[in-house]
Amino acid sequence: MNIVLLSGGSGKRLWPLSNDIRSKQFIKIFKQEDGSYESMVQRVYRQIKKVDADATVTIATSKTQVSAIHNQLGDEVGISVEPCRRDTFPAIALATAYLVDVMHIDPEESVVVCPVDPYVEDEYFEALKGLSVQADKGEANLVLMGIEPTYPSEKYGYIIPETADQTARVKTFKEKPTVDVAKEYIAQGALWNGGVFAYKLKYVMEIARRLVDFTDYYDLFRKYDTLTKTSFDYAVVEKEEKIQVQRFAGQWKDLGTWNTLTEAMEDAVIGKGELNSTCSSVHIINEMDVPVLAMGLHDVVISASPEGILVSDKEQSSYIKPFVDRLEQQIMFAEKSWGSFRVIDVETESMTIKVTLNTGHSMNYHSHKNRDEVWVVISGQGKTIVDGMEQKVRAGDVITMSAGCRHTVMAETELKLIEVQLGEDINVHDKQKYELEY
Amino acid sequence: MNIVLLSGGSGKRLWPLSNDIRSKQFIKIFKQEDGSYESMVQRVYRQIKKVDADATVTIATSKTQVSAIHNQLGDEVGISVEPCRRDTFPAIALATAYLVDVMHIDPEESVVVCPVDPYVEDEYFEALKGLSVQADKGEANLVLMGIEPTYPSEKYGYIIPETADQTARVKTFKEKPTVDVAKEYIAQGALWNGGVFAYKLKYVMEIARRLVDFTDYYDLFRKYDTLTKTSFDYAVVEKEEKIQVQRFAGQWKDLGTWNTLTEAMEDAVIGKGELNSTCSSVHIINEMDVPVLAMGLHDVVISASPEGILVSDKEQSSYIKPFVDRLEQQIMFAEKSWGSFRVIDVETESMTIKVTLNTGHSMNYHSHKNRDEVWVVISGQGKTIVDGMEQKVRAGDVITMSAGCRHTVMAETELKLIEVQLGEDINVHDKQKYELEY
Repeated sequence: MNIVLLSGGSGKRLWPLSNDIRSKQFIKIFKQEDGSYESMVQRVYRQIKKVDADATVTIATSKTQVSAIHNQLGDEVGISVEPCRRDTFPAIALATAYLVDVMHIDPEESVVVCPVDPYVEDEYFEALKGLSVQADKGEANLVLMGIEPTYPSEKYGYIIPETADQTARVKTFKEKPTVDVAKEYIAQGALWNGGVFAYKLKYVMEIARRLVDFTDYYDLFRKYDTLTKTSFDYAVVEKEEKIQVQRFAGQWKDLGTWNTLTEAMEDAVIGKGELNSTCSSVHIINEMDVPVLAMGLHDVVISASPEGILVSDKEQSSYIKPFVDRLEQQIMFAEKSWGSFRVIDVETESMTIKVTLNTGHSMNYHSHKNRDEVWVVISGQGKTIVDGMEQKVRAGDVITMSAGCRHTVMAETELKLIEVQLGEDINVHDKQKYELEY
Repeated sequence: MNIVLLSGGSGKRLWPLSNDIRSKQFIKIFKQEDGSYESMVQRVYRQIKKVDADATVTIATSKTQVSAIHNQLGDEVGISVEPCRRDTFPAIALATAYLVDVMHIDPEESVVVCPVDPYVEDEYFEALKGLSVQADKGEANLVLMGIEPTYPSEKYGYIIPETADQTARVKTFKEKPTVDVAKEYIAQGALWNGGVFAYKLKYVMEIARRLVDFTDYYDLFRKYDTLTKTSFDYAVVEKEEKIQVQRFAGQWKDLGTWNTLTEAMEDAVIGKGELNSTCSSVHIINEMDVPVLAMGLHDVVISASPEGILVSDKEQSSYIKPFVDRLEQQIMFAEKSWGSFRVIDVETESMTIKVTLNTGHSMNYHSHKNRDEVWVVISGQGKTIVDGMEQKVRAGDVITMSAGCRHTVMAETELKLIEVQLGEDINVHDKQKYELEY
């Protein structure tokens, strides 16, 4: 099975655990059997591999997520990187071209496209296989998943099938309705549209070539910023006559808000925290090193990270976005392909950061125009290169780097260091990358 | 007027803003006219000086609070330091001997003793003057303040006066009663005992000499750990026949819990924080650099500091102590006489601290047996002395100190530095102090 997982969104509705560079799908919130926690993207990837060990998984996403994806899923997973945001049709077209031209998959094969963040069980991935098999048959150009509604939701679009069969032709699509209208749809046998569908690669390649003049994936990638923003629904789904839907009646949850996310949490507390006995329906998700104590609360979610602290009534938590939009957006924590960093102190003319490099990884070789830096290695070992000079380093070693000097650090074991940045104009964009000459 | 302010308690009930070394009286929570915040001890000290600019103020406290007192009140204030905890009679006797033998105040003069943390207005300090004047007259050996009850509280002891006059002889004392008993007391004209009283210095000196064999303050200080733990109430008040009470009907609040403390806050939010419009009666006291967002809460206090995060129903907040007792007690923040420090990162074999030195101040000259240290100066200027070697330092300078090496830093301007401690056994008690030879 070929799968494209659409991984988008800045996920402000799960602030302070998500931010501009860490979307909700990367928050480690689901308890595993060994007691550790995995993220939505890790959970979905593990589930796919369990149902189909040979599945080709490609994640369609933006540049900002590439580091976090490699950090959480390793280097095996395919990534189709959108050079900029151009809505779902260009993103899906690019991922399709990536499968054909980079992964060299036969255009006659089908692919299943679905969001990266549904909270589902293995049966869902079995259903995805069903979509793929149906698309292979060629009875229709597009095969959608129709989710059996459990309540008359206003949050989803609806698909009305021609019959109540497991696989049926689509009669029509309906926009997100009011509750009353949703009830009518459901009475007519309507299904939720979860944005999951399968098609043969050649099908979307043909449509893309009709709409855009390009030779192959690389050419499309280069021209990406000139493409018109269009949704896949508008460009493809609504115009297609040969379209089927397959029913899915298993568990399917969209964990987009704290309210729904906490419902999927096995433990009431993740991280350091305690609820006293007068609390009811309270969840704590704490990524800080210090404890959270909750007393006498009801239906409240508390979430703390280096970015901030949210304390919200669960219902109210879905209205968080405008508040987060107004907050200063200094990134205090990020997962990178080589490890992670965390801002631990900010002053007018300095910034102190804790850097963790994973074993065998290194930063880019880079320099800064307007700041000096000092590294104090606090654990592990590795080597630094500063203006071409290599040096073995271990806990206790101090490296000073003036503005302009090129530097990197390579971790032989997991390596942690405190980085002090000094200068009048400290700025994440002040970074020049270089190739390392060996 | 001579005043002794009793400054005690570890104040766990205001966790996470108070801890083993920062008691509640040092939390900056009261808004001043210029928009900055002052602590209880700063507020009380300012109020005393306003009512009586020449007042001799002495704070009776333990060693752990000396740094914070100098940091908040400067070097002018007198401090009588208890070498160890021995309850209120030894503490008051020591402070009395301090006034006589160190401050050289005439033993015929009177002194007013009161807690450091009442939330009161200027009229209260006028009333203290009244107590002092009454004690000077010598009609009684002890003159207590009796606070007009505003409700039948179970939290206070009661004083029953012989008459309803402004100044009256005390008929009897009553322990903390139940509400119903409190009502009866109040019907009899009882007053709250706020632990405020005045006496002539010689009076307590004589009692102390009767109970303890000592020559002067210095001798008493040396013998302090051999003294029996006794309360002033038991050793003095309950045995005294010549005892009066003066009525006080002004504002008097005991801000011992988050519930009562938030009532005295002028703004709903101190520090970075925001309440959405569906919050009611919510207070945020945030000492962290990152924002707190509260949504849809009612009657809740949220308090965040480098020690932890409390989210509590206001009523419930008075039951916090057992939870805090169980928490690990790593001190993450402290005010010292020379400035302050804050722990910003903790690892198994390293600890990173941000140190702020006030202009003109320096640390003790000291060394550590089991850890190396690195300083990175991030702002200001001054000089370091490392094993006798002086060096001018400014932002960007790095000083490395091996275990055993003696070091200090002196701030010529306000000076901030990041200190990285490295070693297998990092411990606050691993510190040897030395005299600096010039």
